[in-house]
Amino acid sequence: MLSVSCGASSLARLKGFEKLTPVDEALRTFFETVKPKRLDPVTVPIHEALGRITAQDIKAEKDLPPFNRSAVDGYSLKAEDTTNASQFHPKTLQLTQKEAILEGEAKTIWTGNPLPNGADAVVMLEHVRRLDHEIKVEAQVTPGENVSKKGEDVQKGQVAVKTGTRLRPQHLGLVAALERTTISVVEKPRIAILATGNELAELGKKPKANQIVDTNRLVLSNMCHELGGETVDLGVARDDESEIGAKIRQGLEKAHLVITTGGTSTGESDLVPLVVSKIGKPGVIVHGVALRPGMPTALAVLDAKPVFVLSGNPVAAMVGFEVFVRPLILSLLGVKDELRPMLKAKLTRRVAGALGRRVFLRVLVSRKGDEFLAEPIRVTGSGMLSSMTRANGYVVIPENREGLEEGEMVLVSLFDNVKVEA
Amino acid sequence: MLSVSCGASSLARLKGFEKLTPVDEALRTFFETVKPKRLDPVTVPIHEALGRITAQDIKAEKDLPPFNRSAVDGYSLKAEDTTNASQFHPKTLQLTQKEAILEGEAKTIWTGNPLPNGADAVVMLEHVRRLDHEIKVEAQVTPGENVSKKGEDVQKGQVAVKTGTRLRPQHLGLVAALERTTISVVEKPRIAILATGNELAELGKKPKANQIVDTNRLVLSNMCHELGGETVDLGVARDDESEIGAKIRQGLEKAHLVITTGGTSTGESDLVPLVVSKIGKPGVIVHGVALRPGMPTALAVLDAKPVFVLSGNPVAAMVGFEVFVRPLILSLLGVKDELRPMLKAKLTRRVAGALGRRVFLRVLVSRKGDEFLAEPIRVTGSGMLSSMTRANGYVVIPENREGLEEGEMVLVSLFDNVKVEA
Repeated sequence: MLSVSCGASSLARLKGFEKLTPVDEALRTFFETVKPKRLDPVTVPIHEALGRITAQDIKAEKDLPPFNRSAVDGYSLKAEDTTNASQFHPKTLQLTQKEAILEGEAKTIWTGNPLPNGADAVVMLEHVRRLDHEIKVEAQVTPGENVSKKGEDVQKGQVAVKTGTRLRPQHLGLVAALERTTISVVEKPRIAILATGNELAELGKKPKANQIVDTNRLVLSNMCHELGGETVDLGVARDDESEIGAKIRQGLEKAHLVITTGGTSTGESDLVPLVVSKIGKPGVIVHGVALRPGMPTALAVLDAKPVFVLSGNPVAAMVGFEVFVRPLILSLLGVKDELRPMLKAKLTRRVAGALGRRVFLRVLVSRKGDEFLAEPIRVTGSGMLSSMTRANGYVVIPENREGLEEGEMVLVSLFDNVKVEA
Repeated sequence: MLSVSCGASSLARLKGFEKLTPVDEALRTFFETVKPKRLDPVTVPIHEALGRITAQDIKAEKDLPPFNRSAVDGYSLKAEDTTNASQFHPKTLQLTQKEAILEGEAKTIWTGNPLPNGADAVVMLEHVRRLDHEIKVEAQVTPGENVSKKGEDVQKGQVAVKTGTRLRPQHLGLVAALERTTISVVEKPRIAILATGNELAELGKKPKANQIVDTNRLVLSNMCHELGGETVDLGVARDDESEIGAKIRQGLEKAHLVITTGGTSTGESDLVPLVVSKIGKPGVIVHGVALRPGMPTALAVLDAKPVFVLSGNPVAAMVGFEVFVRPLILSLLGVKDELRPMLKAKLTRRVAGALGRRVFLRVLVSRKGDEFLAEPIRVTGSGMLSSMTRANGYVVIPENREGLEEGEMVLVSLFDNVKVEA
């Protein structure tokens, strides 16, 4: 049942969404309106670049390695001098200290050392018996064996690290090997976050009766930080049109995008989408998504900047972030297809879906011997943060499935570590 | 072939390890000697706690939610009043504005609101037709349905977040919901890092002929940062006994552990294990591990602090870190079993192992439709950082396997994102 409008009363009309937009359609419509552009490049020292996103291809201005070098400790030689060598029929070669190697000669070499002229291979120490001025080679090597060729790691002119790469330690190492001390990375997206609702108390202030502490700003800002964004805290607004409007405008001035939580249902105190559409054009693009949890999410655009009006429920807000905000932030960073780690696991029990809606099922994945098991977390509603802390991943139940079967192999996206069972 | 000593010459004796220690034995011996203790707790503001490790169980001093509350928008009522209600046989209930609900009555409720006295369930808006002063309930609900029970998220006295947890956004949210503004976390381990070798130039200085830029300090320090450690840079030491000794002593004074790279083979300029054993007791515990890459790794203890003498080869150093340093740092943090994300994937081609040694095979995992494929990265030797930047995970080939077959399902530990093929 996608439509719930029933016409009998103004409350029901106000409350029910005329239509729930399917997730993929909502994403498409929203992105077509926003047309997110990658942010500007900034140059940072390589020591501060971990986790940042490259703003351009990093090309090698030299070969790596810069010369043919030994990949092992052993003896450099001409491969043809080892033809048919074996433990029982070793080949004898003369040790030399000269720069170049002639036929019938070998020279000590350590890992990483340049290959001497005349040599085309290295035999490992383990395959050699050494006498005073000669060696007995007990294994055959082929030309190029145990040699790291000039340019094998990266060739001059080649792209060493592509644009849009999130820099991990190994990327930084490769960039350093190219003798670069700075990297051009994408500016950090700035995200302004506002919580709304008379029922919310600020963390650190004593909540009144029937009030609860706002946790959404803290959770969402940390999700932004994990992605590589900076946040602007807009605090908590009461359910007041002008207060909400002023805060959102403040966010639009300071940040690249704005996230609000709460006030997204169409009920009595649900003002945010209304306020957003009053503030500017085009306003709300999508309101009401076929997503569980996260149904009341609204997607808006103001001053050409995205505004995400997420649910006030902690888990629904996290799911709304995952589905809509995360891809937008990644677009601003110029990152394509950065998916969470995923794996296939066996579902430990049957779970119901919701025909016509995309369901985000929280699961706890554990490894038991050779098998991965995904245990659905039991909860009531989307207010339960513990359903996220007890889970380490989620499974998407697609719109066309009534549920998932016990024993079914499901694709899990991980947001925390896999547990290993004894 | 585990032993490579052959006796004929002093060089070969010096060079060959008498015995390669299996990885598990090396880990066991080393940890039994070090007996790592978890570091001290420090209190940090909740806004700075992302990624830190809890130093004690965080117990709930109140129930979450603090009252029975509605998990949906709808009407609170007595479940028994909806018995056998359906679209064609709706039950009529009187709307009330009073505090408590009597038999035959219902009251509007929004998600998160406390359940009024007398009510034991909530019927969703979608299943109700509203008239002026009454509602027609078109679906049966059971007691407790659509109600988040007091304490369902976390009960008073229960542990909300366990000791040894790496704090993710959802954990911080749960701690905030308990009205805590600070968290007791484990002090950051301090790791001192030294590179050794006459062939190394410092990044930012022009390398001489046959010199290369040291990349290991940068890579390893960033690996430490990713785990939640702080680093102390000891710079580059030449292959000089007193210089290396002085730097290591400096590291022991400033840090909880020391990592060196280079100088770990038993060749001419391989001084580090020698120096380590001269500095203090017990010195080197293990030297030469049945690991590829990473064979020349040495594990030592000085002043009751661990010293890791890793290979100078970039990839061998990273593997040595992964196998030996990472579990030690996690012990100092009090984290158990924090494994990298992993998944099972189909190997795209046959690869050779090395009987008697544990092999770390770098692979690129991609998802093609419903299948995960692991493509081994081709390289010569362990000097190729690009074998890490082109890979996103590793497969361990165990000591008792000659190799892995094409099409075999292998367990991949991920260190970067999975690629999705069109």
